[in-house]
Amino acid sequence: MPIFFAAAIDHSSVILSLFIMLAAAKLMAEVFERLRQPAVVGEILAGVVIGPSLLGWVAPSDVISILAEIGVIFLLFTVGLETKPQAIFKVGKRAVMVGVLGVILPFVAGYFIAAAWGGSFAEAMFIGAAMVATSVGITARVLGGMGLLDIETSRIILGAAVIDDILGLIILSLVSAVSQGSVSYVGLAETAGAAILFTLFVALIGSRIMNRLVPSFERLRLSKPFFNIGLVLCLGLSVASIYVGVAAIIGAFLAGMALAEATEKNHKMHNLTSGITEFLVPFFLVNIGMQLDLSVFRDTSVIALAIIITLAAVVTKFVGCGLGAWGMSRREMAQIGVGMIPRGEVGIVVAQIGLGLGVISGHFFASVLFMAVATTLIAPPLIKILYSEDRDNDGTEDVVLDIDISEDYTRIG
Amino acid sequence: MPIFFAAAIDHSSVILSLFIMLAAAKLMAEVFERLRQPAVVGEILAGVVIGPSLLGWVAPSDVISILAEIGVIFLLFTVGLETKPQAIFKVGKRAVMVGVLGVILPFVAGYFIAAAWGGSFAEAMFIGAAMVATSVGITARVLGGMGLLDIETSRIILGAAVIDDILGLIILSLVSAVSQGSVSYVGLAETAGAAILFTLFVALIGSRIMNRLVPSFERLRLSKPFFNIGLVLCLGLSVASIYVGVAAIIGAFLAGMALAEATEKNHKMHNLTSGITEFLVPFFLVNIGMQLDLSVFRDTSVIALAIIITLAAVVTKFVGCGLGAWGMSRREMAQIGVGMIPRGEVGIVVAQIGLGLGVISGHFFASVLFMAVATTLIAPPLIKILYSEDRDNDGTEDVVLDIDISEDYTRIG
Repeated sequence: MPIFFAAAIDHSSVILSLFIMLAAAKLMAEVFERLRQPAVVGEILAGVVIGPSLLGWVAPSDVISILAEIGVIFLLFTVGLETKPQAIFKVGKRAVMVGVLGVILPFVAGYFIAAAWGGSFAEAMFIGAAMVATSVGITARVLGGMGLLDIETSRIILGAAVIDDILGLIILSLVSAVSQGSVSYVGLAETAGAAILFTLFVALIGSRIMNRLVPSFERLRLSKPFFNIGLVLCLGLSVASIYVGVAAIIGAFLAGMALAEATEKNHKMHNLTSGITEFLVPFFLVNIGMQLDLSVFRDTSVIALAIIITLAAVVTKFVGCGLGAWGMSRREMAQIGVGMIPRGEVGIVVAQIGLGLGVISGHFFASVLFMAVATTLIAPPLIKILYSEDRDNDGTEDVVLDIDISEDYTRIG
Repeated sequence: MPIFFAAAIDHSSVILSLFIMLAAAKLMAEVFERLRQPAVVGEILAGVVIGPSLLGWVAPSDVISILAEIGVIFLLFTVGLETKPQAIFKVGKRAVMVGVLGVILPFVAGYFIAAAWGGSFAEAMFIGAAMVATSVGITARVLGGMGLLDIETSRIILGAAVIDDILGLIILSLVSAVSQGSVSYVGLAETAGAAILFTLFVALIGSRIMNRLVPSFERLRLSKPFFNIGLVLCLGLSVASIYVGVAAIIGAFLAGMALAEATEKNHKMHNLTSGITEFLVPFFLVNIGMQLDLSVFRDTSVIALAIIITLAAVVTKFVGCGLGAWGMSRREMAQIGVGMIPRGEVGIVVAQIGLGLGVISGHFFASVLFMAVATTLIAPPLIKILYSEDRDNDGTEDVVLDIDISEDYTRIG
């Protein structure tokens, strides 16, 4: 008898859903850790199991999608906090190459597969666009859990993901315009210019501004001033980046990066942020799994299409991004290649826009959905294998996303 | 041009709202700290300012109300983590007296005021019911910020708030039944019995179960096992308590209390939880402020009614709960009295139920809304004044909700 809080929305059923999602995610994470598989895969599969495809205990909803987005925003904010701007600039050229080649190949492959499968010109363009954008959250979570966010290939992946997102925005704008039969090159240039200027401005100047401001935060009376200002900056730049046209996580990442130098030694701030990430990221992962529509397998021709698109998505990112890192060792090229494979929520959103515009038909949508979830499941084990040596060599496991204050730590001051 | 994530719900406008709420809350908290006033008052007023009453930048919504509820759930979970069951049982009898008297007086006062103001029998019963339930989150936040959750009067307030919520449930069930003209005493007894049994069971057995289980969490492969199990338990007992009929925060408080002994020295767990609380509690506070409808002041007779109901709400809780603590010092009685004054979200929800049943008319609803917000604004400064001596004496400021790991803390292990 849920009487209290039975206001406009039924809180009891929402909180029940959140409980089921969290419990299922943590259970599957434990199971997958014991199987020596990446926990993220377990958490995404938890979503497949409890979602509409199988048990139907929880269905995607507005509230869940917002929590999921806040989760991935904080995940990228946490990653940004570990990433000094210099470390990205140093690998800048390589990141651009990785980003650009990792966009071109999947787009072209998606276009030709869809065209060969009988899709219209607009449809084929949209499938290409949906193949483009890497969901860097998945990779960041795995590398963060391994304590490897600070090695060179991780930096390149993070930088390339930013480039990738901006290119994805431009392609999506172009494709949307083409499908509506009205391409304004001035409008496109404005969109692209705004996204690039915003990103460059925050990346170049943000850190300097924060390095000046942060020391004065100590004079604030507010409790936990660094953390609270960090929260506001994180949400603020997420909003700004959405309005500029790029994904919220780009803004969150830039916000973290702007604070990275100034709060480098501030473990309290990292711990507080990590609490939010740990609580909300499962909703992001489970929500991806819940998007999977297994009924796609009722139609054998869709199975074939889904598998072809998924294979193409994996191979083209791997090859494109790997080639972008030309000059590095084979293993490093492969690390960057697998790190860029996950598509996740971004591919889904692009496909949804196509569906909304009436451009993409049902079987293409189902296949892209399958590809988006499947790539997030395929990449983490590959990342784990390819990065396992780095972990063994430098022994920095658990430093980053899992800042591990010893349990019996006693309070200082 | 918010293209990405423009799915079913407009994420960009939701995240913009969250940013505005958080930024306004932290700004007002800073201003109020500088004025030596409680930060919570600033945060609630931030909601009044940015809400529909004044600027209209943000309006209450489903997503915000869920975030607000998760915020107060974690707030009470954090408070529970600081509260060993023995500490509550020790003050049990007194807490029952405080709870019972603090329910009877406001109910009777509300009933007679509404009846005298021309309300129907059912309406008067509902106004009485809406005056009953203390919103303990506000008090817990203020006392937690002062580091005073572990003193005797704080324990009594926490225990009394649990009693208060159960009594509130019974009264609301009774009143709802009466207003529908069908009172089933068996049904009422079942409702009351389930709530009481659930609360007693978790309070008495929960801690013992957790004390046994917690050491074995170390064998889990999951990252941050204590924290993650704590999260699941917190949401699980919140859901259970909603289904039993009491507020989710009671379950969250009991979950925290069950873990209090086993995780007493686990500062990492407290810090991680505190990150979530710090991020989400502002939404709870701002959301209360946003409920205030200042247009009530256009009608002078409603002003009078709102002020009378607010005064009655303050005086009857203060006197009722103060008398319940008979035998303690005057100051302690006053501390308990003021600690129980805030009504906040619970009073609003009861009034909304009455509105939904067509029992409460508009001017009574507006007045209860005003009372609910006004009591949360009146109580914190009084709490701060009445508790200031305790803080100065034992110097434990900032220990509890504000576990303060020194900024230059370097990692152990």
